[in-house]
Amino acid sequence: MSVVPSMEKTKESQASIQPLVELVKQDMGRVNELILEKAGSDVEMIPEVAKHLIDSGGKRLRPMLTLASANLCGYDSAKDGHIKLAMAVEFMHTATLLHDDVVDESDMRRGKLAARMLWGNQASVLVGDFLLGQAFRVMVDVGSIRALDVLSTAACVIAEGEVLQLSVAQNMKTSVEQYMQVIRSKTAALFASACEVGPILAGSDEASIVAMRNYGLELGNAFQLIDDALDYGGSAAELGKNVGDDFREGKITLPVILAYERGNADEKAFWKRVMEERKDVTDGALDFAMGLIDKSDALKDTLNQARAHGEAAIKALDIFEDGASKSALINAVEFCIARGH
Amino acid sequence: MSVVPSMEKTKESQASIQPLVELVKQDMGRVNELILEKAGSDVEMIPEVAKHLIDSGGKRLRPMLTLASANLCGYDSAKDGHIKLAMAVEFMHTATLLHDDVVDESDMRRGKLAARMLWGNQASVLVGDFLLGQAFRVMVDVGSIRALDVLSTAACVIAEGEVLQLSVAQNMKTSVEQYMQVIRSKTAALFASACEVGPILAGSDEASIVAMRNYGLELGNAFQLIDDALDYGGSAAELGKNVGDDFREGKITLPVILAYERGNADEKAFWKRVMEERKDVTDGALDFAMGLIDKSDALKDTLNQARAHGEAAIKALDIFEDGASKSALINAVEFCIARGH
Repeated sequence: MSVVPSMEKTKESQASIQPLVELVKQDMGRVNELILEKAGSDVEMIPEVAKHLIDSGGKRLRPMLTLASANLCGYDSAKDGHIKLAMAVEFMHTATLLHDDVVDESDMRRGKLAARMLWGNQASVLVGDFLLGQAFRVMVDVGSIRALDVLSTAACVIAEGEVLQLSVAQNMKTSVEQYMQVIRSKTAALFASACEVGPILAGSDEASIVAMRNYGLELGNAFQLIDDALDYGGSAAELGKNVGDDFREGKITLPVILAYERGNADEKAFWKRVMEERKDVTDGALDFAMGLIDKSDALKDTLNQARAHGEAAIKALDIFEDGASKSALINAVEFCIARGH
Repeated sequence: MSVVPSMEKTKESQASIQPLVELVKQDMGRVNELILEKAGSDVEMIPEVAKHLIDSGGKRLRPMLTLASANLCGYDSAKDGHIKLAMAVEFMHTATLLHDDVVDESDMRRGKLAARMLWGNQASVLVGDFLLGQAFRVMVDVGSIRALDVLSTAACVIAEGEVLQLSVAQNMKTSVEQYMQVIRSKTAALFASACEVGPILAGSDEASIVAMRNYGLELGNAFQLIDDALDYGGSAAELGKNVGDDFREGKITLPVILAYERGNADEKAFWKRVMEERKDVTDGALDFAMGLIDKSDALKDTLNQARAHGEAAIKALDIFEDGASKSALINAVEFCIARGH
């Protein structure tokens, strides 16, 4: 942990998503147009459901990463391959969210009612399938077999990660390694692929492709660790979901694993009762859980882990020359980490 | 309807799936091996759920169609493109079934408990996503952009058809045209694509590609019409589902549309009460509904429609030379139609 920079070293000015937003602003306009076009269908319910989620104010971090990595690797932005793949990445993500809400039985998503609450589980499953299909169609249209390979593999790995998460849910025996496998699969894999297709499109060398993949993978790990930490400390506005959602669903995340490991017999019994037996899962129990997570340094160490992965992401960019794209990508990492503080 | 052959003209010997089964027997062995391999995952729940459905005795008609159409068009069976695409087509279908059971809240599938009854809706959604992802990976591995285009388009169209079906469910205003659009999208599109990729792999001319697509499309239409007719007349063993499932779910199919159109005021009121208001959906109501469907010739005319589409499928094969592949494909149509009698 000694290589991890302290919070103080993260300057306020670096911890901003704005340089990335500015860098890809024009391209994102094209991506957003394509998103609206490809969410269209003669079957009215499809654009209704899709737009509910598309308009719900997600940051569109993943497509921005595709655009910035294409840019970093010198892809000609007059072409449209990066626009299409960025759109496909966002649709893959949106499809996952629609299916996740059904799987988690969530009521809220990004501070709005989840689509399944408005149109039912059925529409959420099927519109998710439609968006995933559209994502593939657009990727096929780009015509890069290698990019297709990267993104179709990500689709499998994401689903595998979600199933693994389901298998270890409500099980206090979940190890740190299993947890890391879940977040690497369900979250980091798409970040990694979103970044990897940039240099692939640009025809970059293998070293650049591997470096961008690693950047995305480590950023994705950091992002999910922060998300899981915020569930025991953030506000609904920051999260777009409620503090304690993971707790109420019995999801075993790193703060819980660490607090359990470090707890005494009574505390271990508490965790088993609420997370495994799902008994007394009250607001009082959530407060108590947050107290245990805090006093055991489980939250602090989760944030430290996030910071270590963030550092690794930044390190992966070493091989690229300094410039606006690189520094925007570095700032994006700092921004993700800063969410946790 | 005068071009439709009468039942008597369909000779018993022609109405068999056996010639198709025999034709592709060796290749299907390879497809089945690949299915088992690609349903594998370190995440135990995935092969468990997938194999529950894979082992449940589906006829694997769609992958057989891919193999037979590749064969008809002279694709070298020593290669493996047709094996991989046949597997991908079956996985697309399996993923659809897993998601359908969640959407329809079905308890049974192919005469066994639906996966969602054993592992929950969550696993059904996510394992479906995994299988769809694997289907795309294997298609990408084949490397034909045109086949990828055909199959990814099918994935979208299927989802669109399912959403459309959801939109028109429990609505007696559903027109025959809307119904035909639903079955063309949700069922016939995959049959069409399964057949179309055969000549694409074989490098056949456009006429052959169009002909095989039309064959699959019309066969798919016929297949679904028969399925919908059987729901008001078959036995659970034939269907792998129970007679009356569509009735109990409020699905508006052709037998219902025709019986409603032809009904008197009292009968129309009955249909609205059970299908729209979902009131008194009892076994007695099902018996009464079956009586109305029978006496109005709605069942007979649904079967006639199926036969007309079957005829069109056979007609599409006219441009191909006679031989074992062509006659197996013709017999497969006769077999599908004969299920309804």
